Amino acid sequence: MQLSQIYKPVQPDLTKVESQLRSVSQVDFPRLAELLSYILSGGKGIRPALTLLSGKFYRYDLELLLPMATAVELMHTATLAHDDAIDNSPVRRGQPTINRLWGEDRAVLLGDYLFAKAGEFAAATGNLRVIRLFTQTLQIISSGELLQTFDAFNLEQTRDHYLERISGKTASLFSLATESGAILSHAPEESIEILREYGFNLGIAFQIVDDLLDFTGAEEEMGKPTGSDLSQGTLTLPAMLLLEQHPVDNPVENLFNNRDMPEGEKQKAVKQAIDLVRTPSIVKQCYEVASDYCTKACHRLNLLPDSPSHRALKDLADLVISRKK
Amino acid sequence: MQLSQIYKPVQPDLTKVESQLRSVSQVDFPRLAELLSYILSGGKGIRPALTLLSGKFYRYDLELLLPMATAVELMHTATLAHDDAIDNSPVRRGQPTINRLWGEDRAVLLGDYLFAKAGEFAAATGNLRVIRLFTQTLQIISSGELLQTFDAFNLEQTRDHYLERISGKTASLFSLATESGAILSHAPEESIEILREYGFNLGIAFQIVDDLLDFTGAEEEMGKPTGSDLSQGTLTLPAMLLLEQHPVDNPVENLFNNRDMPEGEKQKAVKQAIDLVRTPSIVKQCYEVASDYCTKACHRLNLLPDSPSHRALKDLADLVISRKK
Repeated sequence: MQLSQIYKPVQPDLTKVESQLRSVSQVDFPRLAELLSYILSGGKGIRPALTLLSGKFYRYDLELLLPMATAVELMHTATLAHDDAIDNSPVRRGQPTINRLWGEDRAVLLGDYLFAKAGEFAAATGNLRVIRLFTQTLQIISSGELLQTFDAFNLEQTRDHYLERISGKTASLFSLATESGAILSHAPEESIEILREYGFNLGIAFQIVDDLLDFTGAEEEMGKPTGSDLSQGTLTLPAMLLLEQHPVDNPVENLFNNRDMPEGEKQKAVKQAIDLVRTPSIVKQCYEVASDYCTKACHRLNLLPDSPSHRALKDLADLVISRKK
Repeated sequence: MQLSQIYKPVQPDLTKVESQLRSVSQVDFPRLAELLSYILSGGKGIRPALTLLSGKFYRYDLELLLPMATAVELMHTATLAHDDAIDNSPVRRGQPTINRLWGEDRAVLLGDYLFAKAGEFAAATGNLRVIRLFTQTLQIISSGELLQTFDAFNLEQTRDHYLERISGKTASLFSLATESGAILSHAPEESIEILREYGFNLGIAFQIVDDLLDFTGAEEEMGKPTGSDLSQGTLTLPAMLLLEQHPVDNPVENLFNNRDMPEGEKQKAVKQAIDLVRTPSIVKQCYEVASDYCTKACHRLNLLPDSPSHRALKDLADLVISRKK
């Protein structure tokens, strides 16, 4: 299954989102225009697709759904600009990052601009509930990211703690995407809750797979170097499982406990950890956890009215598990 | 004239803004609570006072003005967190900055959180026009700051260019403060425009004086080191006048053209520039320009209905010129 097939029920409108995103780069200030057009190309479009698909079960009001889908993608892009600046990441989606090309200061300011633009699109829905949700989601995302900085290089983390962190930094935006789509299509409260829950659990599954791909993915497909979470001191589910299964002479433990080891040794430890995570047992366990969240995401979708989005949302949950990038 | 005297017509409500700001720090996540309570103390409160004072000419609706005044102060605080992170500033308001104490990454994420919280307060007004204005202002501020990074160490700047820059980074937020106060108190369009114009021109005057105080202020009063704009490569009005008046062997020119000079020589050049700006001629010219903007700010206030805010806004314009910190 390809993303393009899943997007089918909303493809023409997703194209409109893309054209809205392009229009965001059309500003009078040429340096800003250049930054915007650079960062606004190349997303997979999952989040805006979620908003549009979630809007398909009741009154599909494109005038409201289109700005919201655009807002969600802009907010996502803004967080990427800030994440990369903070982590000093050199590459994203196979391209040098904004911070690498233009400096960290511009990456931060560009992110601010995109947050504001996202807010403007959210406000264009004229729906105060959705606008409030938007602002609350950004609070949750930034708290989640903050939590991650305080947890860095800390080996004493429970799985609950990890889930709390990824709920904040990833699942909250997925659930904003679906919940806002439901609200703006005048879904009844129970359906809003079903779609919110779908987005949230899908987001958790997506992030778990993302964290696994950081170890197992092919760099050329991922568009970024593997092992970068570990290098940043971010303890994810695969690394937690690795710690449990190899209690003696564990590369993650060595890495986190000796932060000032020479660069060469660091890279060796990261490489060791990657090799160990790639064993079938850990990979399988990660997919099992992610798969459980996908099941949870979908388990009440049947209660929604019939719509082509039904199949699409289920297929998307399957794809999240099977994706390779 | 003291700020406290000027604030008199709205003092009880300004105290309520302060208590709202304190409530923002009361979050479940202790590390975030600590950061919030640290950064949310010690502001002069000019921007929220402007919102409340601007709301005094028509229907003073505290339920709308209070969240907006809080939103404006939160947005201001967020921009300070990001500015200091970007500039790597060690001190603000006489205290070590967030980036100095907790690191640049946390300063960026804290700023993001504050932008979102500000957005939530703006949304609490339930007024879509004000919400849109809020999001547009943040776009203008971040573009203004971006422009500043691209202008850094560039000697070929006109005064218009400088004005454009400070319009974006400072005056836009002042005008958001006054315009939103006017809108939320149901002022007629002409009065909204008068108060918007007041805020905008006051903001320009405020920033010009700020830029002058960066050369002439006493460090202990300013709460930050003098000459920091020059060290960052930011060309402000006093430095422009200095370039005009000392075309030969100018320390600003030396500094900007030799960015890799040793730290000791840099400091010497900054010190020379400070001494030269402190001559009466440049100081006087800066105050004249700022003063013109204050006159412009106030020139249509008389068309507004009678209110204690009248006097307060005029006194504030005088204070902006006479302030020493």
